[in-house]
Amino acid sequence: MLQWPAGVLVREVGPRDGLQNEPRTISTDQKIRLIELLARAGVRAIEATSFVHPRAVPQMADAEEVISGARRVLAVLEAQEGVQGVVLSALAGNRRGVERALAAGVDEVVMVVSASEEHNRANMRMSIGQSLRQVEEAVALAMGTGVVIRGAVAVAFGCPYRGEIRPAEVREVVGALAGVGIKEITLADTAGLANPRQVYELVNMLCREYPAVNFALHFHDARGMALANIVTGIQAGVKIIESSVGGLGGCPFIPGAAGNVATEDVVYMLQRMGIEMAIDRHRLEDCISWLEEILGRKLRERKPGCTNSTG
Amino acid sequence: MLQWPAGVLVREVGPRDGLQNEPRTISTDQKIRLIELLARAGVRAIEATSFVHPRAVPQMADAEEVISGARRVLAVLEAQEGVQGVVLSALAGNRRGVERALAAGVDEVVMVVSASEEHNRANMRMSIGQSLRQVEEAVALAMGTGVVIRGAVAVAFGCPYRGEIRPAEVREVVGALAGVGIKEITLADTAGLANPRQVYELVNMLCREYPAVNFALHFHDARGMALANIVTGIQAGVKIIESSVGGLGGCPFIPGAAGNVATEDVVYMLQRMGIEMAIDRHRLEDCISWLEEILGRKLRERKPGCTNSTG
Repeated sequence: MLQWPAGVLVREVGPRDGLQNEPRTISTDQKIRLIELLARAGVRAIEATSFVHPRAVPQMADAEEVISGARRVLAVLEAQEGVQGVVLSALAGNRRGVERALAAGVDEVVMVVSASEEHNRANMRMSIGQSLRQVEEAVALAMGTGVVIRGAVAVAFGCPYRGEIRPAEVREVVGALAGVGIKEITLADTAGLANPRQVYELVNMLCREYPAVNFALHFHDARGMALANIVTGIQAGVKIIESSVGGLGGCPFIPGAAGNVATEDVVYMLQRMGIEMAIDRHRLEDCISWLEEILGRKLRERKPGCTNSTG
Repeated sequence: MLQWPAGVLVREVGPRDGLQNEPRTISTDQKIRLIELLARAGVRAIEATSFVHPRAVPQMADAEEVISGARRVLAVLEAQEGVQGVVLSALAGNRRGVERALAAGVDEVVMVVSASEEHNRANMRMSIGQSLRQVEEAVALAMGTGVVIRGAVAVAFGCPYRGEIRPAEVREVVGALAGVGIKEITLADTAGLANPRQVYELVNMLCREYPAVNFALHFHDARGMALANIVTGIQAGVKIIESSVGGLGGCPFIPGAAGNVATEDVVYMLQRMGIEMAIDRHRLEDCISWLEEILGRKLRERKPGCTNSTG
């Protein structure tokens, strides 16, 4: 009989990976409000913003204000409702970003390294080796601050530039990250190419080889496979799933483009499987309704079950 | 390490479970053409129509003509392209339906029995016991004809009238079907309520208890869980998956209503997992394009993977 984990943690990436792709400008206050609503719903790990150059991602130019505002509302939530232990995370693109993130008071900094040279150069304009040195630098900068450096391996399941990614290529990047002391690593299916068998086999191999690393998984819902990939990922030992409230993300200009897997779908499925999520689905729905208002569009078609008679 | 089956068979239910819910009238010739296109794409098990009273399902009033027409085009396909072994299946609602199906020349007759009394009465207007006696009668009628009687257990994973269905209730119906000699049994998530863990546990139990039965699984894509349910179903030993080309089915009047899981998504996922399907995806896409033309609407949003940079 298969074993399932007793609990799974959601790492919410909507405020960062979701909003950075939105065509509408979202105000700093709205971003802070989103983080508050997520924390109220029970989310305990939130990727809040991105410390990158404002020219590269103008939507994230208010990263400092988002973090300080989020700190403020989280302090109120703690005082008023006893909400504790919300990890505020932010992406950083280089040394300058890490310094800004540390100064802003994040709990965790995410550094992205691709599994393919081609994607790393396209995304970060440097080699994998250079990216890894930046991670090492970030670890040194964070030393003694209590801030965690998280590694994210982009295109871990396939690369839009290169095609197939061999497990050995992912292992090499994971090994290098683990080698500089990274204990939290996200395997990201950046291009929406993962399949459930591949997820199981890669994650199983990495969990065995790096028992000290907490792996997280990040899928886009290409061809409806995200939840299937999550199921085999947790079968292989992962206990952290990244998702985006309302499926925020993807490309809003492409109808039907695969966004991040939706937090509410992940929570619904895992809770129905008897896996503890500590998230209040009704509050999550409130958060989605609020988001739909400020974005001015429906985020997700709700799909009710069908009671169609003969099968 | 998990084991995966070398191959999985698709039982295509679009011509029956899909078209019966279409608001547009589909001509008999179009139904036959759909079956032909599916067979050309490599589909080897097709639920072609339903032998029920035309007042109950007017869309299926031409069941005899569909079967005889399908026989004709399959004979031509065999002669011209060597296509062999396509199983033509049809649903029957009662003794009269079984007789009509046998006279029409089907290879397989599907009889539906619900796992809950409430759904069986709503769907078939009789008790589970009465339905089971009809199955027994069907087996007797088919004796010596070479026609297979398939059992389908509706609401096997949850009932819209009753809520939870205990595994013992499903086992009871499966046991009764096996007891009258049924060797092909579909477990149908009629209401779109199944979750991957439940699927694994129920299927695992039934496959162990009834090793002589070939189980098939039938899911609706409620909340994006269909593919995840299929993955754990095949992990538990199922080698037949029911699906509907273009995701036909569900309720076309409810936007976003969960239709049957789409054949092309099942094939795409399983082929990417290295599981043999013997289906030509390009021909399947041709079939979907043709269907979209005759139905006058897009069947499925295509969801391309996203090459979004940072995760």
